[in-house]
Amino acid sequence: MNLKVKDMDIATGGPLVAILNQDDAHKLDLYVLDRIKIRKGKKIETVVVDIAESEKAVPRGRLGVFEEVIDSLGLKDKDKVEISIAKKPLSLKIIKKKLDGGILTKKEIHQVIWDIVHNKLSDIELTYFISACYTEAMSQKETIMLTEAMAEQGQTLKLRRYPIIDKHCIGGVPGNRTTMILVPIIAAAGLTMPKTSSRSITSPAGTADTMEVLAPVSFPLSKMKKIVERTNGCIVWGGALNLAPADDKIIKVERPLGIDAESQLLASILAKKLSVSSTHIIIDIPAGKGAKVKDRKAALLLKKQFENVAKKLKRHIRVVITNGSQPIGNGVGPALEARDVLRVLMRDRKRPLDLEKKCVMMAGEILAMAGIKNGREKAQRILNSGKAYMKIKEIIKAQGGNPDMTPKEIPLGRYRNTIRAKKSGVVSHIRNGAISHIARIAGAPKYQGAGLYLYKHVGDKVSKGESLFKIYANSAAKLDYVKEVLKTIEPFVVK
Amino acid sequence: MNLKVKDMDIATGGPLVAILNQDDAHKLDLYVLDRIKIRKGKKIETVVVDIAESEKAVPRGRLGVFEEVIDSLGLKDKDKVEISIAKKPLSLKIIKKKLDGGILTKKEIHQVIWDIVHNKLSDIELTYFISACYTEAMSQKETIMLTEAMAEQGQTLKLRRYPIIDKHCIGGVPGNRTTMILVPIIAAAGLTMPKTSSRSITSPAGTADTMEVLAPVSFPLSKMKKIVERTNGCIVWGGALNLAPADDKIIKVERPLGIDAESQLLASILAKKLSVSSTHIIIDIPAGKGAKVKDRKAALLLKKQFENVAKKLKRHIRVVITNGSQPIGNGVGPALEARDVLRVLMRDRKRPLDLEKKCVMMAGEILAMAGIKNGREKAQRILNSGKAYMKIKEIIKAQGGNPDMTPKEIPLGRYRNTIRAKKSGVVSHIRNGAISHIARIAGAPKYQGAGLYLYKHVGDKVSKGESLFKIYANSAAKLDYVKEVLKTIEPFVVK
Repeated sequence: MNLKVKDMDIATGGPLVAILNQDDAHKLDLYVLDRIKIRKGKKIETVVVDIAESEKAVPRGRLGVFEEVIDSLGLKDKDKVEISIAKKPLSLKIIKKKLDGGILTKKEIHQVIWDIVHNKLSDIELTYFISACYTEAMSQKETIMLTEAMAEQGQTLKLRRYPIIDKHCIGGVPGNRTTMILVPIIAAAGLTMPKTSSRSITSPAGTADTMEVLAPVSFPLSKMKKIVERTNGCIVWGGALNLAPADDKIIKVERPLGIDAESQLLASILAKKLSVSSTHIIIDIPAGKGAKVKDRKAALLLKKQFENVAKKLKRHIRVVITNGSQPIGNGVGPALEARDVLRVLMRDRKRPLDLEKKCVMMAGEILAMAGIKNGREKAQRILNSGKAYMKIKEIIKAQGGNPDMTPKEIPLGRYRNTIRAKKSGVVSHIRNGAISHIARIAGAPKYQGAGLYLYKHVGDKVSKGESLFKIYANSAAKLDYVKEVLKTIEPFVVK
Repeated sequence: MNLKVKDMDIATGGPLVAILNQDDAHKLDLYVLDRIKIRKGKKIETVVVDIAESEKAVPRGRLGVFEEVIDSLGLKDKDKVEISIAKKPLSLKIIKKKLDGGILTKKEIHQVIWDIVHNKLSDIELTYFISACYTEAMSQKETIMLTEAMAEQGQTLKLRRYPIIDKHCIGGVPGNRTTMILVPIIAAAGLTMPKTSSRSITSPAGTADTMEVLAPVSFPLSKMKKIVERTNGCIVWGGALNLAPADDKIIKVERPLGIDAESQLLASILAKKLSVSSTHIIIDIPAGKGAKVKDRKAALLLKKQFENVAKKLKRHIRVVITNGSQPIGNGVGPALEARDVLRVLMRDRKRPLDLEKKCVMMAGEILAMAGIKNGREKAQRILNSGKAYMKIKEIIKAQGGNPDMTPKEIPLGRYRNTIRAKKSGVVSHIRNGAISHIARIAGAPKYQGAGLYLYKHVGDKVSKGESLFKIYANSAAKLDYVKEVLKTIEPFVVK
């Protein structure tokens, strides 16, 4: 059947979807979520079918296409295309098998991941897969195969180095910007750490957002490789690299219900580590009220699973359980966190000591794992000597940033407001969720200078009227909105 | 925040969704699948948030809305609306609870069904619910509560009659048009049978499609009630009545993977029975190769579950397991099936005896359940005496059709082709799926006259060159396409 393209001017955010008018669909006996092949010249793409009941949405003789299909086939509005019936993806039977409690083979897992990566599954179909992995827990063997499939179906970084260090944090704690301090310490110690990081999805800043305050973070793999070969390290945005690309698509479907299928979580994290060929991995599990992992018991369970799976994948691993019940460092938001990081590395008097202490501990664990004695002392020495600061300058320069930027030169939001204690007492709790939310509505991470600066941490004494934190917003309207929201939530608990 | 409506000119097919530009979303710290309230004058609707990354799809300051939202709030393109942040539906926590293996309370089940009926859940969220019900099987108590919730959240027909008969067929068998023969037999026997039927979704004809050949089938509940009070029966389209409306939305999400959560299946079917206040229910489970239920063992299991749940709902039930391995009757497609039905009722020489036999058996079961002795003989007498034919004429007239239409007067597709046996032998199998597919691509059920007529059934002898079946299409192009498809599939197996 020949149809004329109608550009729907909108993206699905993943799945390749085209819309037929119901009359045309009927001619081919097609239903919603069936598949068709679209041919444009020599290019062919198989896509999911949706059906329009009105002539207004998609008239007869037209094929409504979403942005992803436009891009894949290089289409323009009113282009002529040929469509034909295609088989449904093999994955659907495999997903059904998992829903029925079956154990998947390596081939089956690779098929599902292939279909996910290539946008062949609709949201409904992908949700069934995530749900199946959640309710019919994957075996360890399946989890390992899933990890390998996710890593293999994406680019991989190959380096002739050993060891190759990597790090991951389970997250949920504002300000916890350890990566940007760890990478220069480890690289200055002579080890290789090709770190890829994410941008924020629901937090006030991802490591990639924060690094971007100091230097560009989007590179092709070849350029990333050169940076690492020159400096021993890098801090780049993983999203530009197509490493384990199934991950992002899976996360999108997990978020609405806060589903974290353990097998999926392990596979997602470790697949990214495999794809940069890392040999030694440290995992930070912040545990506590307001963090993703709520208590020590859950953290210990997760730790054990990481250790088991990494062992089967023949990777060295250390898992540290840290205090996740309050923000770490003083700044929250890209610019404010970048200031914290530079202050630690520059040995500034105003550096946040909690962040420094955590980084030295983790660096010590990494060095120990790599067979270096007295790791923690060595990490502290590298920091104290200024070698770590020299190294971050080297990396910033290699990534195309200005290595001489000082913390004070990093611009912050112009609209500011200080929140003060309503009574005297001791800070008994700081709510991670409230802190993140406020930093976000102040403008972070989109506006680098937006966020907040904490003057107090849990356990600190405060007098009535003393500053608790300061808000930095990028517009007066945002600052007003933050003030409005602060009438309904209290980030600090003073007792 | 005040925004200007952008009519996206497309329907989601259910969920209420609005799209914000990413900048506007960021201002309110909103993510995909969050919820907002849209206010237009005095009308307020809570909808699911989607986010556009481009100015092209939804520019800043605009709110892209799908048809369902346009309809719900009576919006026009460029209308000004006010939006504010809303809480996510309570259902999400309840769905998560079920995914985690929890047992749902009555209140929780009602909440989920309310949110489904009112289009408050996105496809992803609804899929998690269906998946949870599938993998974490509902208890009998939950299934009963689900049935009641589905029935209560829709219209109900109230009749001062006893007994009230209803019937359901699990489906999957082409031509199996028993309802249109059973209703007049039962109504002629003095019992009440207010039958609502569905239109075809994936079959060549639903009962509503076939009845529509003889009379209108879309009525408001008040009119349906009058028809039943006058004639003891009716055969109307359930879709016009808003009975147990959650069902359609659930089916849409089940179809892609062919998921049939048993609790859902039972609840969907029985909820529709509750909503017409039926007291005596007969269920037909066609079992066999090519039917929905593959074998007798699965059929017996399902039968037992129907009996258990109906008992708790205080309904009389009979479940019959029938042969579902080949089409029933000769016609497939609305007009051809309507001809079959009239021929049986008119005692025509060319009537399909397999269909008649099945109807008499089922009518006998119904009469026996209602306490009438020798039910089967009585049903056969009602048929033979012409009383059933008189009754269908009465019902056709009450529904506004022409009661004097004869089978020959029902128009059939003008483009015809007879398929003949390629060799002599015995028909060993007729593939239900292939028969349905061919009837559909010939034009059924959209074009009433399209479909096919079977000259042979399983067990019949055929000589080479003898007619197996005849195709009726509504256009030459369709007939050509059927011929093309017949090169790749063989509906008849002759051995």
